[in-house]
Formats: sequence, structure tokens, C-alpha cells
Amino acid sequence: MTAITLAITPGEPAGIGPDLTIALIQQQWDARLVVFADADMMQARAEQLGLPLTLVPFTEDSDAVLPPGSVYIHQVDIAKPTVPGELDSENGGYVVETLRQACQANMDGTFDAVVTGPVHKGIINKSGVSFSGHTEFFAHQSNTMDVVMLLSTEGLNVALATTHIPLEYVAKAITRERLHKVIRIINTDLKLKFGIEQPQIYVCGLNPHAGEDGHIGTEEIRTIQPALDELRAEGIALTGPLPADTIFQPKYLAEADVVLAMYHDQGLPVLKYKGFGAAVNITLGLPFVRTSVDHGTALELAGTGNADPGSFKKAIQKAIELASHQQ
Amino acid sequence: MTAITLAITPGEPAGIGPDLTIALIQQQWDARLVVFADADMMQARAEQLGLPLTLVPFTEDSDAVLPPGSVYIHQVDIAKPTVPGELDSENGGYVVETLRQACQANMDGTFDAVVTGPVHKGIINKSGVSFSGHTEFFAHQSNTMDVVMLLSTEGLNVALATTHIPLEYVAKAITRERLHKVIRIINTDLKLKFGIEQPQIYVCGLNPHAGEDGHIGTEEIRTIQPALDELRAEGIALTGPLPADTIFQPKYLAEADVVLAMYHDQGLPVLKYKGFGAAVNITLGLPFVRTSVDHGTALELAGTGNADPGSFKKAIQKAIELASHQQ
Repeated sequence: MTAITLAITPGEPAGIGPDLTIALIQQQWDARLVVFADADMMQARAEQLGLPLTLVPFTEDSDAVLPPGSVYIHQVDIAKPTVPGELDSENGGYVVETLRQACQANMDGTFDAVVTGPVHKGIINKSGVSFSGHTEFFAHQSNTMDVVMLLSTEGLNVALATTHIPLEYVAKAITRERLHKVIRIINTDLKLKFGIEQPQIYVCGLNPHAGEDGHIGTEEIRTIQPALDELRAEGIALTGPLPADTIFQPKYLAEADVVLAMYHDQGLPVLKYKGFGAAVNITLGLPFVRTSVDHGTALELAGTGNADPGSFKKAIQKAIELASHQQ
Repeated sequence: MTAITLAITPGEPAGIGPDLTIALIQQQWDARLVVFADADMMQARAEQLGLPLTLVPFTEDSDAVLPPGSVYIHQVDIAKPTVPGELDSENGGYVVETLRQACQANMDGTFDAVVTGPVHKGIINKSGVSFSGHTEFFAHQSNTMDVVMLLSTEGLNVALATTHIPLEYVAKAITRERLHKVIRIINTDLKLKFGIEQPQIYVCGLNPHAGEDGHIGTEEIRTIQPALDELRAEGIALTGPLPADTIFQPKYLAEADVVLAMYHDQGLPVLKYKGFGAAVNITLGLPFVRTSVDHGTALELAGTGNADPGSFKKAIQKAIELASHQQ
């Protein structure tokens, strides 16, 4: 078996992404890690952090797993030298290009997964490149119609039926069609990428107390329950809709492979509380494995050596774990 | 100092409220506990559970704190004998009458707090008495315009700006006026009832990422931020609005006396996850202390001795703690 090959995008060069990448390759990984970035920028950051860094150009013949302190590099030229902590819109195009090339490498099948560091949406858009997020970018680049955001921490996976939309639009966005798509993607990817034979999917209601038999909203009766019944008929193992304030109890979590929340703040507060600093963002539905840190660029920490690599480390570990199910 | 006097309403007689009351008075309490219920019903349940129960009629001269196995009783006649687990609409009026008398006793000032067991809204309404919940009932009986629901567990208090309304109405319900009322009540009651000199109130945004500077909803900018600024000018210590998926991290929880969530499923999943089986419901804004269990009637467990008294016990402890700040 060939070693697993990961594309790593450190993301925004003025943020902590390069720092965390350099910190994390000081340990031995049982995989080929290939950083999609500018070599000079990475080298300068390593010097600032006082950490060893040997960058080895990645080619078709790069079979070896490298020792600590070394990592493969896939060169993407940066526009301007970076000052840690200082955003520069002239480098917005560079960040997007690292993502584009990492996506393409995964589409080509030479890579097993992509792990993304934090980007700064604002500065990318300011540079003139329209960019609403990694997830949307990878979906578009890979001609994927629908993707699902899943956050994972030790003992809990939470997937979202809707993500970054204003709360006032959530109820209308929960349609049978959306639930069909989202749940089918979850079921398929938990089989393919997580290696779970019959995924157990626990589903939250939309309203408080899951609507309490229609007394607090009717979406459970009109939309969610019928959608779940239709999907059960396809053989998908679904439990719910259950109230969001009781679904996270031990007896359910012991059975659930994933909890599907109807919206962002229904599911992620518990996930982040439980897995503080060690949550991984996973995009389901893409034709490749993609994991990501769950935090931002933390510009004020770039170059200081004080950034916590916990989430990035988990993202790499999770990518290796998921990729291994597909080999 | 006279011992604290608590009114306890076991609630639905066919549910586990009487069981938990009987189980909990087997321990010594440093307070006078007065059960508002039917003596024969309580005695029959104690026999079924095989637990000792001496009911002492409560009068103006009842100064003593009673020993384990004994409790004061304030008689409210039940309409029909109860079979544990079997709801009977003929007893709906009885349940409401226990609440009415407990409320009145607290209004009169002879009691220091009321602790409520679980009721069954459906059967009360079926009995012909319109009843939407304890909180609304006590507010109406005490001529209180606005109350706030707060759930409490070890190390975390969560208050709600909106409670049991369909999710689709939440965004419209978050107005400056509502935030003014809710936050003033929280601030006042955390001083008066919790004995906190300058309460630190941490406030969630309404939208994912607290709206991300208006990119994901504008209620934070249009409504929440201005409301908080106005209240800060009154001297209330407010932090936020913060994203709901980062507000529950240790550094914030170490400072926050209460987290104000904008709606039910934004705040309670974390609270219930953290305090599983030991959360207490507290009504702020009433002219007396009111605590409650955070669970339902669990009809199937009534009379079995298998019901978990954890939440009811915490509700009594919390009532004693809060009442002690007002003495």
C-alpha cells in the first residue's frame, strides 16, 4: 500500500496557517504531506519561528514519507512578500490559487485528501476575487451541486442542514428536497469516507421541543417527519426528529454516528463546547476527502509561535483516517 | 433567623412528581418544606414505593424543621383517586389549584420560594382549564407583565430572550424593547435573588457567527448592538453579542454569571449537555423565588421507584440558596 498523500493549504499567508503547518511537520506523520504554498514565504516564517524546515519539491516520483522537519512542497508563487499579521489584498489571488491547485490535484486522483488552513474571506474579496468560503469554492471547482458541512470532535459528529444563512431564513430553507439531499449525502459519505456500514443518523427537529406535536411549529409534521419516512423507505437508518436539547444525551450519543442539526447554532454550540480547540470541519459530498481547521486566521498570533495547533493537527489526523477507508 | 420555608408542588399526581417529593424528604433539609397536594394521594404513593411518610399539617405555628421521612402538608383536595401512570382529566383542576395556592402563599410573604414538579399541560387543558405553563400561570396570578426563563446547572446559567415559539418567529420577536425588558429583569434578579453585586451578562447574537459584521443577517447591527449600548449606559455589565458557538468556551464561562441566548435551541442544548439530569429551571421577574425540575411527568415511571430525583433535588437546593439571599 502506498502511503496516503495529503494536500495541505496553509491558507492566508499573513495568518497562523503557515505557522501551524510548520509546527505540525516537526512530528513524524505516516503519510506524504504536500504543502501548496510559496516556498520563500514558508521558509521565512520557519526562520521567524526558529523551527527547522526542509522543503522538498513534490514530483511523480516522490514516494518517500519524509522525516520530521521536512515536508513536500507544491510551489505556488506569492505576489508579494508577507508580513505576519498584515493582510495584503495583492496576495488574495495567491491564496485562491493554492486552493485551486490543491483541488485539481485531488480531482486528478494523485492525492487522497486536502486539509485546509484558515483563509480570510474579506481580503480575498477585496483583492477582486469573489470568494464565499472553502466549501463553496471546492464544490464549484469540482462541479458538485450539493455539499454538507460536518463538524467532528471526539465522540460527536454534527452535520448541518443549513449553514451560514440568517436565522430568519432557516425555517423556509428546511424543505423535503433539502433534507433528502443532505441526508443522502451524509449516509453515502459516512459509508464511503467514514467506513460505517449502516450509519445511524439522529435528526433534530426545527422548533423547540421538536414542535411538541405541532404546538410549537408545524415543520416537523409537515416537512421533517415525511422526509424522514421517505428516506427510511430507502433503507437509511434515521432516528427523530428529536428535541435539540435532549438529543445530545449520553444514551443517544452512544448510538448516533452523526447528529443532523437543522441550523448552525442548534448544533455547533454543543460540538464546540465538547470539543473545544479540537474540532475538525469536514465537507461531505465532494469527490474527495476535505478536512479543515475550525478557527480563523488569528492574525495577531502569526509569527509568534503561540498559535494552538490542536484543530489543524486533528484535521490532518482525520484526513488520514478518512482517506484510509477509501484505499 | 427563621428557617427558609418552601412551597413544593408535586404537580401531576399520575406522574413522578409525588414519587420524587417522597424520595427527597427522606433526607434532612435545612428548611421547612411544605407540600401542596392531597394527603391521601401522597400517602398511597409512599406505600406503593415502600417509603416512610409522615404528613404534618402546616399552620402559622409550624416553626420546626422536620426530620427525614416527615414533611409539612398544605392540603388541596384531589377530585379522584390517582392510578400512577394514568392521566385523568378530572384531576386537572386539582393540579392548577395546588399551583394557585402555592403562588398565593408566596405572594402573602409567609413563604420564601416555590419549587414545582412536572405537570402535564395536555391533560389540564383537556379538563377545561386553559393552561400554557407554570411560568405563564405564575406571571398571571402575580400580575407580573414580563418574566424570563433561566436554566441553571453547575457552572452555567442560561437565560432565554424568547422561549417556546416556532423558530420562524424568533427573528421578529427579538426587538430592542424585548431585550431591554429581558436584560433588566436578569440584571435585577441576579442581584436580588442570586446575590451578585454586578452581574456579568454575556449575550449571544441571533445569527450564525453573530451575523459576521452584517454578512449573515443584520439584527446584531440593527437591534442587538444598539439595545446593549443603551443598557450599558444604565450601568449594566454586558458582553456581546458573541457567536453562540464560541460563547460557551472556558474563558468566557469563567467570567459570565449568565449567558443570554436569543432562543431556546441556541442556549439549552449546551446547558442540558453540560448538566445532564441536574438542570434547574428558574423563573426571573416574579415577586418570589420559583424553581422547577427541567423534565416532564415520565408517566411510565410513576410508582416504580425508578425515577431520578436529580433535577428535583437541585431545584430544592437552588430555591434554598436563592431564598437565603433575600432573607
